[in-house]
Amino acid sequence: MAGKIGLNVTQICLPRECTEDEIIEEVLKLNEDPRVHGVYLHLPPASLTSRVLNTLRPEKDVDGVSDLNVGRLVRGDMNQGFIPPLANAVMELLARHGEQRKFVITLYVSEDHGMEMSGVGPLTAALRMQNVVQSSSRWAQGQQYRPWTLRSLKLQPLSPVPSDIEISRAQTPKPVDQLAQEIGLLQEETEAYGRTKAKVRLSLLDRLREQPDGKYVLVAGITPTPLGEGKSTVVIGLVQALSAHLKLNSFACLRQPSQGPTFGVKGQRGQISTHISMLEISMLINESFNLHLTGDIHAITAANNLVAAAIDARMLHEATQKDKALYSRLVPSVNGVRRFSPIQISRLRRLGISEIDPSALTPQEVSSFVRLDLDPAKVTWQRVVDTNDRFLRKITVGQASTEKGHVRETQFDIAVASEIMAILALADGLGDMKTRLGRMVVGSSRSGQPVTAEDLGVSGALAVLMKDAIKPTLMQTLEGSPVFVHAGPFANIAHGNSSVLADKLALKLVGEDGFVVTEAGFGADIGMEKFFNIKCRASGLRPNVVVLVATVRALKMHGGGPNVSAGSPLPREYIDESHHSLLQSLQLFPWFPLWLPSPWLLHRTDTQAEIDLVCQMAKESGASDAVPCHHWARGGRGSVELAQAVKQAGSQPSHFQFLYSQETPIVEKIRMIAQKVYGADDIELSPEAQAKIDYYNQQGYGKLPICMAKTHLSLSHLPEKKGAPTGFTLPIRDIRASIGAGFIYPLVGTMSTMPGLPTRPCFYDIDLDPVTEEITGLF
Amino acid sequence: MAGKIGLNVTQICLPRECTEDEIIEEVLKLNEDPRVHGVYLHLPPASLTSRVLNTLRPEKDVDGVSDLNVGRLVRGDMNQGFIPPLANAVMELLARHGEQRKFVITLYVSEDHGMEMSGVGPLTAALRMQNVVQSSSRWAQGQQYRPWTLRSLKLQPLSPVPSDIEISRAQTPKPVDQLAQEIGLLQEETEAYGRTKAKVRLSLLDRLREQPDGKYVLVAGITPTPLGEGKSTVVIGLVQALSAHLKLNSFACLRQPSQGPTFGVKGQRGQISTHISMLEISMLINESFNLHLTGDIHAITAANNLVAAAIDARMLHEATQKDKALYSRLVPSVNGVRRFSPIQISRLRRLGISEIDPSALTPQEVSSFVRLDLDPAKVTWQRVVDTNDRFLRKITVGQASTEKGHVRETQFDIAVASEIMAILALADGLGDMKTRLGRMVVGSSRSGQPVTAEDLGVSGALAVLMKDAIKPTLMQTLEGSPVFVHAGPFANIAHGNSSVLADKLALKLVGEDGFVVTEAGFGADIGMEKFFNIKCRASGLRPNVVVLVATVRALKMHGGGPNVSAGSPLPREYIDESHHSLLQSLQLFPWFPLWLPSPWLLHRTDTQAEIDLVCQMAKESGASDAVPCHHWARGGRGSVELAQAVKQAGSQPSHFQFLYSQETPIVEKIRMIAQKVYGADDIELSPEAQAKIDYYNQQGYGKLPICMAKTHLSLSHLPEKKGAPTGFTLPIRDIRASIGAGFIYPLVGTMSTMPGLPTRPCFYDIDLDPVTEEITGLF
Repeated sequence: MAGKIGLNVTQICLPRECTEDEIIEEVLKLNEDPRVHGVYLHLPPASLTSRVLNTLRPEKDVDGVSDLNVGRLVRGDMNQGFIPPLANAVMELLARHGEQRKFVITLYVSEDHGMEMSGVGPLTAALRMQNVVQSSSRWAQGQQYRPWTLRSLKLQPLSPVPSDIEISRAQTPKPVDQLAQEIGLLQEETEAYGRTKAKVRLSLLDRLREQPDGKYVLVAGITPTPLGEGKSTVVIGLVQALSAHLKLNSFACLRQPSQGPTFGVKGQRGQISTHISMLEISMLINESFNLHLTGDIHAITAANNLVAAAIDARMLHEATQKDKALYSRLVPSVNGVRRFSPIQISRLRRLGISEIDPSALTPQEVSSFVRLDLDPAKVTWQRVVDTNDRFLRKITVGQASTEKGHVRETQFDIAVASEIMAILALADGLGDMKTRLGRMVVGSSRSGQPVTAEDLGVSGALAVLMKDAIKPTLMQTLEGSPVFVHAGPFANIAHGNSSVLADKLALKLVGEDGFVVTEAGFGADIGMEKFFNIKCRASGLRPNVVVLVATVRALKMHGGGPNVSAGSPLPREYIDESHHSLLQSLQLFPWFPLWLPSPWLLHRTDTQAEIDLVCQMAKESGASDAVPCHHWARGGRGSVELAQAVKQAGSQPSHFQFLYSQETPIVEKIRMIAQKVYGADDIELSPEAQAKIDYYNQQGYGKLPICMAKTHLSLSHLPEKKGAPTGFTLPIRDIRASIGAGFIYPLVGTMSTMPGLPTRPCFYDIDLDPVTEEITGLF
Repeated sequence: MAGKIGLNVTQICLPRECTEDEIIEEVLKLNEDPRVHGVYLHLPPASLTSRVLNTLRPEKDVDGVSDLNVGRLVRGDMNQGFIPPLANAVMELLARHGEQRKFVITLYVSEDHGMEMSGVGPLTAALRMQNVVQSSSRWAQGQQYRPWTLRSLKLQPLSPVPSDIEISRAQTPKPVDQLAQEIGLLQEETEAYGRTKAKVRLSLLDRLREQPDGKYVLVAGITPTPLGEGKSTVVIGLVQALSAHLKLNSFACLRQPSQGPTFGVKGQRGQISTHISMLEISMLINESFNLHLTGDIHAITAANNLVAAAIDARMLHEATQKDKALYSRLVPSVNGVRRFSPIQISRLRRLGISEIDPSALTPQEVSSFVRLDLDPAKVTWQRVVDTNDRFLRKITVGQASTEKGHVRETQFDIAVASEIMAILALADGLGDMKTRLGRMVVGSSRSGQPVTAEDLGVSGALAVLMKDAIKPTLMQTLEGSPVFVHAGPFANIAHGNSSVLADKLALKLVGEDGFVVTEAGFGADIGMEKFFNIKCRASGLRPNVVVLVATVRALKMHGGGPNVSAGSPLPREYIDESHHSLLQSLQLFPWFPLWLPSPWLLHRTDTQAEIDLVCQMAKESGASDAVPCHHWARGGRGSVELAQAVKQAGSQPSHFQFLYSQETPIVEKIRMIAQKVYGADDIELSPEAQAKIDYYNQQGYGKLPICMAKTHLSLSHLPEKKGAPTGFTLPIRDIRASIGAGFIYPLVGTMSTMPGLPTRPCFYDIDLDPVTEEITGLF
């Protein structure tokens, strides 16, 4: 019988009474038959002996040793005619051998087939088998890439431009299961969260692993004003133009906004961090939008704080108990048996102890096992909340009498600053995330050894807490284009980019001719540099196009315009055309010729003269194109010119290369970034920074990439230096490391990781109508 | 045309050119026609003059003044033949007049019906109108109560009893949308969260408001051992027996477990709080169970901590700014206009300022408006985390230089101890929750005035953060019976019961002959007493049956058995039958004759002799029945005897009455609880407690119910006093108030609101297989 997926599937039915030797003889024949490319052993468990399994050539074995289990499933489900395991095996064979027609043999013994098969003659059994193969083939076909059938939503552009929430209320989003179907997701690959959000399972990557990726587009920005320059809106506008107007499959990948700033200062986000704000998310359908989204940041908070609680509790218990008492509690006798847990065995291995019988450890081994010996002064792990709570910037904990005087100074960061957020954004699967969570360094021992989350025994629990957060959240733009919202790490102490997994899923889904548009936080000196050298290094992906967002406002500021700050009126230099001489005095940015062909665009129309001037300057400095954007007022239609420029740039070859190799020494990596990206003359290391570098080299962290923690308001370390300053030396005050996330972060200046609330926070205007459930004042 | 819902609907079509007078004449005729029970004015807006509207008798007006709006909708949707507003109006009429056949007249003018109707002849228009009425009737029918079609899942009872997670893995849950359909939920009433959880919208209460409630069953327990006695498993077993075996509609309402203890000590929950644990939730289908459930506790954490951040930031801003500066920041000029926000106007009202022009306030009014003047020493609001983090029991905040020396001692509680959790559990709608959130008292001013969340301007934001948490989460038991998991307040500083809304939704869904089984935390002296006097008072619901759970283990302990503690082996007195003399020395519990007919049951079979003895004692002391339960080993089938007893008890009249009236003075209320429920001789108030009572009386809080914060391990205040102690005086150390939740809580002893982690927390055993995503070690 011929399947529809380029396969010929045949079965060989052996008699009931056949012996092991007869089966083996048959297998040996199949091993030698050049027409047979795969054998699926559909045998009763008793016949699946290790001799039989070992006889079949591994390259012909379509399902390996899991057959035992599969045998059972096939038997149970035969009447239903739907056998994923067999179909999977067939898919596996196709993947291994390419797409020519293949022969698969199902070796089949008619004996002992349980309830369903007992009393069934060979003919019936053969017919059933045929059904199984046919439906497997249908099923396998269903697993293949599905072309999109995206239905765009019409936007009614209004003039004057209404507030974001009014725009999004005027639209009715498609149900998310419909959206999922339109973009070729299988039903079992999504998990709805309400009506317009769904998490997408990572099994998609496996199903479409043979599918070529789409084009990968990065949206970065020039050094911004403190108001931010709207990169996220460009991402959305571009995707809407590509999908709704150019009819190309396309996907936006955005970061999840932090809750904290939502209730803080309007337009403040530029100052305090780097994640996108509710304002930008409002460009998505937000009728259903709730502040918790699908709970990923809450999961990070829970995981982060479990580590923190474990650290302090462990220090207390070590300080108040002798080795023996600690050991008997850590490895208790359960029903008379003492046993190490798998997490504890990992720790034993790191300590070089191969013994796994708890009673056989020497007192010295017991001591090194039970004592993490964390130095309270060298704990680097902080607690987090997703609230702008300035009073938690520096606190003393442990002051209750139950903590017996073990007080300690520490701090809370905002949740998105957690290393776990950086890990979520960089992990490329559940296994990778779990490994990274386990190796997070939370501090060091009194003898200077790093102490990890796994040493605390908490790594499994962290993986459990994060198991749903790792799935990207599918939403849609106002014009019905798909969006992944996933992860949102800080762009100074972390890398400030959305997740690797969202990008990877999207690249598979859009297909070879499609586009995935992702965004890097802060200015290109920070977000784009980290996108290239940290995120792309981790993911193995390479960008095809970079879009650099500039506004006339920001360009004027770099040309010498006055300061801009959130909450104050915009100085007239930015409104009045007569000041466009500011643009002419602009110096060009040093990072520009470094990498790829890049369209350079601007948005928020000022005057035609200004726009023409900026476009001309951009092209002269090497951009492959420069176009104005009007998505703010006109949605996707306002970005069609940009979409065409991106499509054009995407068809050109990209010559991507890393700025530095992993093997380059830490100091050299920092220097290369400072000189080639920031335009510094050199760097200057403090003694602390030098000592840390020595320590990291000694610990084997020297090959990690560098994640600069620098102000985003200047290419230099001085926020007031605008344009492209030269003649400065970049001071490296100190250096830290996020070993789980996998980077080292030099501190250039002081980074605030906890924003505060102003005298009149936004929440004064936020309200909920209890009858209509309408939210007011969020934007 | 006759609708199918007991209505005759007729329309009168007036000519295009009819005048206002002609319409009024027609309305007057309808007013007088005794066959006409309702009139729906389907008129163009221009004809809906106030004269016309005032002419129609209010009792005949099926849709009141909202017709203007409805008129528009009807026109727009006519071609779709689906008109909820008209159908709603019809339903309204039915509800108002009972169920006999009614005449409804649609008074209809053919003029000015917009695009859809222009150029349409009277016949077409009439036909369309007929369609509208017919589909409205179908729609209205769809809105009515739907009988259940619940499909139970077969349980394969295993012996020996496997671990909970193994049981639940062996089952395949029904998709939650199928479950929702089986229990008569409309598609638009659920919001799926993954495949086996869904939030249920509160609009259900409105749709089924005419539907009689089912029977309301409370499961409470005797004073437990520190291990807990498994009330939640009784709830689940009972519901499974009722629905899967007795084929009665039934619903379980459970509390959401806190994450903290999940990673702490197995069996510790009894010690540290009162919420159910993962162990109990594991009795539900938990293949899909994730620790975050649908994020309600995270929402509470976010809301709680926003209040905390607002408090400290406000104190800092008031301390560092003069009145004028504060005022100009709190009421800024936006485009030259200064305006109070609605939240600020509420505060002005509370201050007795009627002026709403910001420029017209006197300096004194400005000062009282801008200065909450919170006394740092009298801030009662705490931050929360959902982690067992003992080092946060007492901390100092504000030590960073940016906070300018405004340090303050404070603490974190575990998230479920937040007043917001208590509010979630008591609120009966979005509006009620918002009101309660606004009136939460966070501390008092230097002059002794209470300061509320609304004074801080944060109440709208809190409602926004909590808008999804208010919807109960629908899940299912292992046998496919429906369960609501919703809210889980502390049972000492709060009332320890699941949510009013979950109970109300469930009571509507099960229908008149169905059963809703809900659970009260801790022993009956605490959970049941608060269920009656706090929860039932707030909800207006009255229980029909109370099930009191007892175990031989706990009874023996009260009869003089040795101490039981989590993590230690059980003393042989509890295993060995020869000690059942302990049962005979048992004293009966004083609360027993207080209230309703109650089956008394026991579970975890010990010996037949013990069981017989306990059942006999229970009946002698007034229980309407007493039966053993075997749900632990046999699922619903093991609780059939209990289900029959509950069904029998539910058919008897209930004589419910509150223990005290709201008007009773605070001291008297406390004394009544102490004497009648705990068996105390009297109470003894500390001077602090007396001062607080005076203060609360002065603030008008005297009518609030009482929520005792007492140990759950004894009826008295001394955990070691077992059985039914007498001859003691209950000391009231201090008194606090949760004004938002709406109760006063006297403190009897010290209540821990933050559990800790032991030397070897459970998390050592918790792990996630990254390939299968299977969780191990949670139970």
